[in-house]
Amino acid sequence: MSVEKVNLAEKFSLFGEHWSPKIVGELNGQHVKLVKLFGPFVWHHHDEEDELFLVVRGRFRMEYRDREEWIEAGEFVVVPRGVEHRPVAEEEAHVMLFEPASTVNTGSAGGGMTQETLDRV
Amino acid sequence: MSVEKVNLAEKFSLFGEHWSPKIVGELNGQHVKLVKLFGPFVWHHHDEEDELFLVVRGRFRMEYRDREEWIEAGEFVVVPRGVEHRPVAEEEAHVMLFEPASTVNTGSAGGGMTQETLDRV
Repeated sequence: MSVEKVNLAEKFSLFGEHWSPKIVGELNGQHVKLVKLFGPFVWHHHDEEDELFLVVRGRFRMEYRDREEWIEAGEFVVVPRGVEHRPVAEEEAHVMLFEPASTVNTGSAGGGMTQETLDRV
Repeated sequence: MSVEKVNLAEKFSLFGEHWSPKIVGELNGQHVKLVKLFGPFVWHHHDEEDELFLVVRGRFRMEYRDREEWIEAGEFVVVPRGVEHRPVAEEEAHVMLFEPASTVNTGSAGGGMTQETLDRV
């Protein structure tokens, strides 16, 4: 049996890139990913996927078309499918994502920040 | 648009019962739940659901039939469907669960610790 626990801080120490989610767990067709945010991401939405962002360290600002909200360590937000959003981190933030395995990071937007395949750490 | 962030500590402050998961989020047919562990749970498995346990505060011991492992704050474990397990907390532990909306806490075991319907907090 290969049930192995995952230590978030240890996994975060294994990579440095920003906006490049790493897969650290898988269940029920969903992926658990870790990502380091820094600076602004691109405006996008996901047609079919709801997306959970849980802040493990630091904080970031989630921008929507009509408002924005800071998400702090120990807080999460679920962005429903179809809702345009843009995460912005003024300082580096460590975030755990929970979303379907099919999710592409830039969703509707595509472009240079798209990660077509994700590494596991 | 009703995208509201969730503060884990605030939600944990809203209830005291042990082994009584509260729903705090929903996405892609999955529930995010918070639960306070204290003492031993019952041995059980889930036929159809993989289950994620992320420790937010404290720690607990996950027992399997052939071994056991302590899961500490900042760590998570995914217990795959079919795998018998029993969480045991020697001191109160605060845990976030991620699992399909269909999941019943005691899985295969049933019995007095079963929570048929879950509150939202």
